[in-house]
Amino acid sequence: MALEEGQNGGAEKVAAEVSFKSFKPQLFVEASKANDAVQFYKTAFGAVETCRTTQPKRKADQELPHIVSAQLQLAGSTFVVSGLSDDSASTKAGGTLFAMCLETEDLEAAVAKAVAAGAVAEGGIVEGEGACCCAERVTTVKDPYGFVWQFCSPADECGANVEA
Amino acid sequence: MALEEGQNGGAEKVAAEVSFKSFKPQLFVEASKANDAVQFYKTAFGAVETCRTTQPKRKADQELPHIVSAQLQLAGSTFVVSGLSDDSASTKAGGTLFAMCLETEDLEAAVAKAVAAGAVAEGGIVEGEGACCCAERVTTVKDPYGFVWQFCSPADECGANVEA
Repeated sequence: MALEEGQNGGAEKVAAEVSFKSFKPQLFVEASKANDAVQFYKTAFGAVETCRTTQPKRKADQELPHIVSAQLQLAGSTFVVSGLSDDSASTKAGGTLFAMCLETEDLEAAVAKAVAAGAVAEGGIVEGEGACCCAERVTTVKDPYGFVWQFCSPADECGANVEA
Repeated sequence: MALEEGQNGGAEKVAAEVSFKSFKPQLFVEASKANDAVQFYKTAFGAVETCRTTQPKRKADQELPHIVSAQLQLAGSTFVVSGLSDDSASTKAGGTLFAMCLETEDLEAAVAKAVAAGAVAEGGIVEGEGACCCAERVTTVKDPYGFVWQFCSPADECGANVEA
């Protein structure tokens, strides 16, 4: 990988190779309100939903299954509304109810490059469909200014369960 | 405007006409740290700066003028880093250090539509270059889930003072 580089060029070469396929702000909403939030963004801004993952319906009186993640298009960009699950409580307590998702083939390299620049890795790689933006692998870093960035594996095509 | 509509179609017709040219997350950072933050996003994620507005240099020992707003491109999307000025203190106290900017020709209609859907208008229209994303007119609403959205007039071409 560093064949053309001098002795000090290896790390920079690796870092320069990290590329991102998409950049999506992710807004966290209480799980019970996520359906309403998605509807609000459609009504208020004309956002169009393109992807939705849901939790199994847990209560008989629950009209719709809670959203894990819904992806919306707006003005040529994409953002994600995610339901805050119980284990996201730490995110909520920190006052950070949003993140920026960067889709990349190489989560490990992305984390390494961000940490080298001054970010702090938060936990390891989480696996499981719907963790973020319909991605199967997700990991998180916090930048020196307090903002949370999620590196997500490229999402599969995901149009099931999308409501018009 | 509602010529082709029935008696109840007027408001919906107006609402449907609001369109957004761009959607940009905006990250607020203390003004003294905004230069560093922009540099971090370049180094960590390979973001490319496309627009910068700065304050006049106020202190002799200040190496660079503080950033009012810098626009960065990343993975085909755009985000904005803005310096938190003193009068942004209320934003900071509320724990909301970010906003979503929606660029539109018609701020008033955008606010009206968002408020009709359940958002709350926060203050009036602020005028002044650099207020947000190099736009000249900006206004803010808070959605029912606590997120802040800024409607901005379309920004002029703005490449001055951009550092490589």
